[in-house]
Amino acid sequence: MELLENKIINEGIYLGNDILKVDGFLNHRLDVELFSEMGKEWKRLFDGENVNKILTIEASGIGIACIAAQYFGCDVVFAKKSKSSNIGDDFYKASAYSFTHGNTNEIMVSKNYLTGTDRVLIIDDFLANGEALNALISICKQAGAEVVGCGIAIEKKYQGGGDALRSKGIRIESLAMISSMKDGIIEFAC
Amino acid sequence: MELLENKIINEGIYLGNDILKVDGFLNHRLDVELFSEMGKEWKRLFDGENVNKILTIEASGIGIACIAAQYFGCDVVFAKKSKSSNIGDDFYKASAYSFTHGNTNEIMVSKNYLTGTDRVLIIDDFLANGEALNALISICKQAGAEVVGCGIAIEKKYQGGGDALRSKGIRIESLAMISSMKDGIIEFAC
Repeated sequence: MELLENKIINEGIYLGNDILKVDGFLNHRLDVELFSEMGKEWKRLFDGENVNKILTIEASGIGIACIAAQYFGCDVVFAKKSKSSNIGDDFYKASAYSFTHGNTNEIMVSKNYLTGTDRVLIIDDFLANGEALNALISICKQAGAEVVGCGIAIEKKYQGGGDALRSKGIRIESLAMISSMKDGIIEFAC
Repeated sequence: MELLENKIINEGIYLGNDILKVDGFLNHRLDVELFSEMGKEWKRLFDGENVNKILTIEASGIGIACIAAQYFGCDVVFAKKSKSSNIGDDFYKASAYSFTHGNTNEIMVSKNYLTGTDRVLIIDDFLANGEALNALISICKQAGAEVVGCGIAIEKKYQGGGDALRSKGIRIESLAMISSMKDGIIEFAC
């Protein structure tokens, strides 16, 4: 998606150590007009898939998920992060290691809000190693919900998480796919 | 706002100890259609105030803030929570005690994304003692930004945080104002 790629080139900041800072439009200041264009594009890509629920994870996924949900006419559920494992049996749970924060979060979704009849589009801001996405997919499986696919804003393709999921048959639609950030020069996959 | 009050009556669950669970539509599953009506109402209330930025706090504020921002034609900035105080000088910071979680969070907003020319509408899901709102207002003051007012989904009016802020001249527009939850019976202020 050219609009997002241009944003990354013009406003993204490469911090070294493989970290791309996009907090000017994606995960601190939120460019809602950009989110709207992203939502339309995911709707175009997943049209006809009868998505009835968007699943995301706090915090940075929530904004893009809510805006996208308007185009699908569905609700959003966001997985909560908690370091406590003692929260009872009313939640589906899975573990996700965060490379950004260097810790493992247990993520949880109430059993009330994800069911075996749901056709779920998972939305998140970043896909790198695929830890968060794997945890969200695990939660859908526990609920018996169908994962229609995943809508990602920025995929770091060279980290392999996306392709590992694709090889398992999961449909991933990333709006910007970075193939390299060597020496801070951002290149996109075609 | 009748739509939100009806949601609270029909779908809210009183858990005792002054805790109202509204995770079926406001802070776990997100009813985006309801958020849209809330956004329109805040736009009606703050029309003509030239709001150019919406400030909220992760995580539950982000969804309502992003949907509301579409009606104001502006961006959103969300304050991040961190238990670390050692994050450098590039952030405005304030402390907020969470009665729900029983801990104190330092919240932070990058100095890049809030400035002295901003006219800020603060949006959040709940207002009880006013801890989070006070912290967000403090951050706006540090930036020299003008707080036009606060748009709140649910105010527990009897806890006094909203009225304390009103007495300081802060405009608070809460879409549902609960005057009492005694014995689990929810009553709204007129």
